[in-house]
Amino acid sequence: MDTIIEPRVLKGFRDFLPDDQIQRRDLIARIEAIFRLYGFVPIDTPALEYAEILLGKSGGETEKQIYRFIDHGNRDVALRFDLTVPFARFFAEHRAELPLPFKRYHIAKVWRGENTQRGRYREFTQCDFDIVGTDSPAADFEILFMIRHVLQTVVSTPVTIHINHRGMFNRFLDRLSLREKSTDILRLVDKRAKLGAEQIQSQMIEQVGAAHAEKIMQFIDLKGSFEEIVEGMIELSGGTCPESATLLRIHHFLSDAGAADSYRLDPSITRGLDYYTGLVYETFLNELPAIGSVCSGGRYDNLTSLYSPEHTTGVGASIGLDRLIAALEALGCLKAQKGAVRLAIVCEDAEAAGSYQALAMRFRERGIPCEVFFDAIKVTKQYQEAEKKGIQFVLIPSGCDQTFTLRDLETRQNTDKLRLSDIVDIVAR
Amino acid sequence: MDTIIEPRVLKGFRDFLPDDQIQRRDLIARIEAIFRLYGFVPIDTPALEYAEILLGKSGGETEKQIYRFIDHGNRDVALRFDLTVPFARFFAEHRAELPLPFKRYHIAKVWRGENTQRGRYREFTQCDFDIVGTDSPAADFEILFMIRHVLQTVVSTPVTIHINHRGMFNRFLDRLSLREKSTDILRLVDKRAKLGAEQIQSQMIEQVGAAHAEKIMQFIDLKGSFEEIVEGMIELSGGTCPESATLLRIHHFLSDAGAADSYRLDPSITRGLDYYTGLVYETFLNELPAIGSVCSGGRYDNLTSLYSPEHTTGVGASIGLDRLIAALEALGCLKAQKGAVRLAIVCEDAEAAGSYQALAMRFRERGIPCEVFFDAIKVTKQYQEAEKKGIQFVLIPSGCDQTFTLRDLETRQNTDKLRLSDIVDIVAR
Repeated sequence: MDTIIEPRVLKGFRDFLPDDQIQRRDLIARIEAIFRLYGFVPIDTPALEYAEILLGKSGGETEKQIYRFIDHGNRDVALRFDLTVPFARFFAEHRAELPLPFKRYHIAKVWRGENTQRGRYREFTQCDFDIVGTDSPAADFEILFMIRHVLQTVVSTPVTIHINHRGMFNRFLDRLSLREKSTDILRLVDKRAKLGAEQIQSQMIEQVGAAHAEKIMQFIDLKGSFEEIVEGMIELSGGTCPESATLLRIHHFLSDAGAADSYRLDPSITRGLDYYTGLVYETFLNELPAIGSVCSGGRYDNLTSLYSPEHTTGVGASIGLDRLIAALEALGCLKAQKGAVRLAIVCEDAEAAGSYQALAMRFRERGIPCEVFFDAIKVTKQYQEAEKKGIQFVLIPSGCDQTFTLRDLETRQNTDKLRLSDIVDIVAR
Repeated sequence: MDTIIEPRVLKGFRDFLPDDQIQRRDLIARIEAIFRLYGFVPIDTPALEYAEILLGKSGGETEKQIYRFIDHGNRDVALRFDLTVPFARFFAEHRAELPLPFKRYHIAKVWRGENTQRGRYREFTQCDFDIVGTDSPAADFEILFMIRHVLQTVVSTPVTIHINHRGMFNRFLDRLSLREKSTDILRLVDKRAKLGAEQIQSQMIEQVGAAHAEKIMQFIDLKGSFEEIVEGMIELSGGTCPESATLLRIHHFLSDAGAADSYRLDPSITRGLDYYTGLVYETFLNELPAIGSVCSGGRYDNLTSLYSPEHTTGVGASIGLDRLIAALEALGCLKAQKGAVRLAIVCEDAEAAGSYQALAMRFRERGIPCEVFFDAIKVTKQYQEAEKKGIQFVLIPSGCDQTFTLRDLETRQNTDKLRLSDIVDIVAR
């Protein structure tokens, strides 16, 4: 006998067995259906790109994580590590062929050689959606409004979308003459939920001294209604400004749409990335805040700066599909997938396979999934197999005058002399 | 200004713009829906695997084409080049967790560094479906029957599935004492459609001499009904055998299911791969045979021989999605995708974005895709934008008593004082 190669996957990579994969595909289909209701359209890009294009001006962190190699044609290539960079390249390349504003979504796998000890996967699915080519606040609002629609549909428990404005925070830091430290400060603030207020405050004092730290803590801990918090921000940052007007406008849109309850102005939201310049947001499940944000995004100033002299403003967000699925599992929102097939045709005679499939087609034509058993093994054995698969009904094809026996495996009752149309009605119920 | 990196994709790789991507996703969704009607379930596996697992006992050809590299952890890894090898590894690894027979499908991308001059892509989507863990001919028949169902649904012009039996061909070669040359002969026969009978015959004479070549040509050119061809095969290969019985049984199943017209016994079908051991088949579009087989498959003896001491027989096939899409385009079977969004809400006042989205929700809740314009630009400009996107109707929100004006951009007619429910009816039509 030949040597056996041990069947195994790479660390950080996963097989998806049918029950999981059905859930993933159905979840994606539901999310996509909502995107389409808003006129968003899908795109796709290659998994493999020139490393130069994917890495651009990224720092060392990305470089260390990326799957990069030299291909047969001696090209320096890499697997995409997110969907934002490929979208920037895509938009720069195809701008002339696309309607503006361009509303796209992209659901696809990305790869990062991350440390798996932090419970991270090296292959995971991202779900990005953006509106580019407009700086209208109505576009920011549409993204925010659609996030709520998507999550309310798939999660079925309340969500809260935490909003902030990067520009507002920068104005505030300018006033304290701390602009040059803004990256460090934003990173620290971003860890607020994880580390807690005290930890943040003591680290902040180290960074900027006690007086400034106190002001910053005051800013990020502002409480009250949306409008009251905007008031507080205005006061701390030295007066009204275009950014405060944008925040109020978004609030006004959300109120008019009857959706304001799902949103909270939260000055501690910063998003780690330099990339964002306007509104930023994160989405938490009210019943499971500890799992972190399941959908984050914001407005950016120039998507395509690396690939085009033309300016491209936009707004977008990304659903963390793996985290969302973990949350749905924890909340019991994932339907058991067994029982998708409602009916099986019992095999009494292996030579009758043709007529069994013809019979099954009568159900499939009506959208009812129907299996056919292949072998004329003991009927009770076939019942067991059907039960194991979560199939509720089996049809016993022997009969006369075009009638059949139907067995309900839940009640263990047989009903004789049923016409096909009766069975369709029972099974479709 | 920073240097601009030229936005471009690798040779043999493709971006999919929205119109194409919508068609691809909708096609895949329709195919998947049929798989599910038969009780097939989806799985997924990693894009990246140990090179050892993917390459197994593959020869030099695969090795040259595969994207293979050393990862950060010094592992020898590669991108999958098909979905069969990962499925074999998957099944060997998870056998205990899966129901038998296991009916799975897998639709995903694969990568091969092929010569792009032959019009091949280096990244493409495969669509595989298999029934493993049974050698019942009823399983072979189900695969054949489902292929017809899928293709008749998505192509809407007739298809013919050409069937042959590898074992029958081998028996015939045994009789001519040509078994040791069988690989070369099968490869040559496989090129019959491409090279034509004369070319094949002259090359065959070189390989096996004139007398044997004549016999082989006689075998592969057998004509007549399914049964007549089986008769001819039996005669040329020295009498009835289990393989001829299987062919007749499959024909009997297809006839009982009322589907026999779509199938043809074709002794020239061999499938290049060593992998197949039983029935083999290829599917041609009657109106476009030159494009080649859009769905091919067959029965194999042992899927998991590399990864497990246990034997796994099975039967399966693969739809060439790129070729199928090319065929659908050539046949005009692809619906124009513009016009998925039926309605747009005109923006008359940028401050009313909230109420416009609330209005749009009334349509989206009923499953009607509806866009909202963001900016209060000239109304005629908004009509033009809607037309460019293939949107037929625009709703002009100003009005009184909860009524609105609807404009049909095809007829250029406005209708005033419509209630929302009237508009829903018109737009949903």
